[in-house]
Amino acid sequence: MSFANTPQPPYYAVIFTSQRTESDEQGYGKVADLMVELASKQPGFLGVESVRDEHGLGITVSYWATLESIKLWKENMDHRMAQNKGKSDWYASFVTRISKVERDYSFYR
Amino acid sequence: MSFANTPQPPYYAVIFTSQRTESDEQGYGKVADLMVELASKQPGFLGVESVRDEHGLGITVSYWATLESIKLWKENMDHRMAQNKGKSDWYASFVTRISKVERDYSFYR
Repeated sequence: MSFANTPQPPYYAVIFTSQRTESDEQGYGKVADLMVELASKQPGFLGVESVRDEHGLGITVSYWATLESIKLWKENMDHRMAQNKGKSDWYASFVTRISKVERDYSFYR
Repeated sequence: MSFANTPQPPYYAVIFTSQRTESDEQGYGKVADLMVELASKQPGFLGVESVRDEHGLGITVSYWATLESIKLWKENMDHRMAQNKGKSDWYASFVTRISKVERDYSFYR
């Protein structure tokens, strides 16, 4: 995964910080990949950036055109099943923050 | 590093996504630690979450009380020296996004 190619602000960012448990690495990986694939087909999806380190701490930021598109993705049935599995098995803890991107700038060599 | 203990929204998030070069691992690590230490002493600093994976892709999200506090940290002289070194040596590319957190929710076991 790499940088999201987002449009000019304003747009929305969902910042999802999480600590993985040590359980079910394979099942988690498959579903995480599937969720990115499904999210990318949702109306209003603009991109995603995701990093997890060797201690299981991760930050995933997904970008969206509107608050409504975030709400629809949150309520998506497949996503809800994954959310439940996240709470029961995959995550020791997480924080989700919904934010509005007002400004951005980038640097490329 | 772990979760930032942020207050009730609204507050601001600076989402910094970056790809490290392969140069100067030791120098980078020292200055990165120092910048977290300096930022945490700035007025308006609320916390930071940071993850980098084995491919050098990183996401650092710092949280701030106001846009003014973000501006002051951006202009801090030590931070500006680090920013210059980041562009000349440490980062192949980066994107900075300034956003306003409107809602958050968390899960802990």
